[in-house]
Amino acid sequence: MTINVFFAAGSDSWAEYQGPLGDAFAEAGLDVALSPEAPDPTRVDYLIYAPTRGEFDFSPYQNCKAVLNLWAGVERIVTNPTLTQPLCRMVNHELTEGMVEYVVGHVLRHHLGMDAHIHGQDSIWRNTVLPPLARQRRVTVLGMGALGSAAGQALTALNFPVTGWSRTEKSIPGLRCVWSDEGLSVALACADILVTLLPRTPDTDNLLNAERLALMPSGAVIINPGRGQLIDDDALLAALDAGHISHATLDVFRVEPLPPDHPYWAHPKVTITPHIAADTRAGSAARVVAENIRRGEAGESLLHLVDRARGY
Amino acid sequence: MTINVFFAAGSDSWAEYQGPLGDAFAEAGLDVALSPEAPDPTRVDYLIYAPTRGEFDFSPYQNCKAVLNLWAGVERIVTNPTLTQPLCRMVNHELTEGMVEYVVGHVLRHHLGMDAHIHGQDSIWRNTVLPPLARQRRVTVLGMGALGSAAGQALTALNFPVTGWSRTEKSIPGLRCVWSDEGLSVALACADILVTLLPRTPDTDNLLNAERLALMPSGAVIINPGRGQLIDDDALLAALDAGHISHATLDVFRVEPLPPDHPYWAHPKVTITPHIAADTRAGSAARVVAENIRRGEAGESLLHLVDRARGY
Repeated sequence: MTINVFFAAGSDSWAEYQGPLGDAFAEAGLDVALSPEAPDPTRVDYLIYAPTRGEFDFSPYQNCKAVLNLWAGVERIVTNPTLTQPLCRMVNHELTEGMVEYVVGHVLRHHLGMDAHIHGQDSIWRNTVLPPLARQRRVTVLGMGALGSAAGQALTALNFPVTGWSRTEKSIPGLRCVWSDEGLSVALACADILVTLLPRTPDTDNLLNAERLALMPSGAVIINPGRGQLIDDDALLAALDAGHISHATLDVFRVEPLPPDHPYWAHPKVTITPHIAADTRAGSAARVVAENIRRGEAGESLLHLVDRARGY
Repeated sequence: MTINVFFAAGSDSWAEYQGPLGDAFAEAGLDVALSPEAPDPTRVDYLIYAPTRGEFDFSPYQNCKAVLNLWAGVERIVTNPTLTQPLCRMVNHELTEGMVEYVVGHVLRHHLGMDAHIHGQDSIWRNTVLPPLARQRRVTVLGMGALGSAAGQALTALNFPVTGWSRTEKSIPGLRCVWSDEGLSVALACADILVTLLPRTPDTDNLLNAERLALMPSGAVIINPGRGQLIDDDALLAALDAGHISHATLDVFRVEPLPPDHPYWAHPKVTITPHIAADTRAGSAARVVAENIRRGEAGESLLHLVDRARGY
């Protein structure tokens, strides 16, 4: 019998997910009627959702066996009083993998001083200064969530001494964990290379302001694949111009795409990557959705089921 | 009582090692008279040696308790018939660490397509193409010695599917190992990124010739931190110009420093690093030497003692 799946995650997502979901259902051997419209809510078997959809009334979907969220975060859904169906969040290992690759790659790029070799093919052989080893290069990661802790552990595996900071107390194997405002000063003071992987919250807005940048070692490097709002842009530009911060590699910005006239574009000490550090990949997300529908139809337990009481 | 140590590793090395050895002896609490001259060979307690010294007669050093080699390789000493004293080779973890950092860094650089961002700050936001993950990027490492296997395993830890090739059969956890001429063709055919970490031998001279480069996937990248002689330079330049190889990052060359008029310098698809991938660091090597002298004086067993029958 055909399974009716309502794609209620917004029209932009529909363009991105229609193909991958069709492929994933076929791969799983599922006979699915997938649609971005649901003329009769009572006939919907599964609902694919994303918070971009905005306000949503789940109550008419009385026979819906599960709501499958396309995002990892469910903080904007669990508070919806009309949602009584089982809710599954997206857990996508590829998102973490992509982030770890970006962070380790750019940390090693700065550690090894690659840019001088990439830019400078001037026929002059300069091999007098032996670069320090990773064990002599201190890295601090701000944010010890899934992404920050995975990136920190990958750097530890390469011998970097890693300090991980989070708002509240955490313990991550292989890292020196610090927390609270006091811990932040400690974490910044030993950041030869700083990686910012905090979520955007009122607490983290302009976290890296002039005062906190001044706590970092002279010549430090900043890599921000987290959120543009974490950094006070004017303070960073001033610290780069003063030479206190030697380079910033930025993947995220307050306004994206970064406007063509933004001073970051022309700054010789800034590298811009266009929000590519990590992204949910429709292909793998579609396979997670298909697997959960297969499980639901086979009477097996669903993956990544949200505990409504805990909120995640 | 003062320990007499004769530094017989050549005058260039003396300039590099004199300070670090003095520091290491002081750190170990050893009362050492270190000299690059040995007026009375019978009074020498320990001999520090490197093959750069050339022909050497060890027989007058009748009371020498050990010959401490500054190099990992001892193939040019073990055949010396005058050497009857215990021989220790240098095992230096920092050499491996430096090499792993270089290899992982440059593999990630090419994997992430960093150069385009490092070069191209042109105010255009290009984020339409999601890059592949490491698990979709095949890396081959030629050479499964201490350096090649450590680099291969570090890449495996980052999810790269790694194929490791060696002349003879080997088994390295986490890598797909292949060997022999047949295995070399297999290893080259799946090398989206190729890392060459073979020693220089008559067998490896011009290993990467035109025929073998043609076996690699179109658009492949080559990273050579091994030996310049592994690559047929003309064949590589032709493959780069034809677009079959998209980039070569080279750390070692047949002639070093690389002559200013060498075509590699001006080639837009070549990155030159000046033999910095990995090097014996005098500081840590000096500490290994000091530790062995401390052990010798305390009657403890020496580290990294060479088995003359096996030859290493």
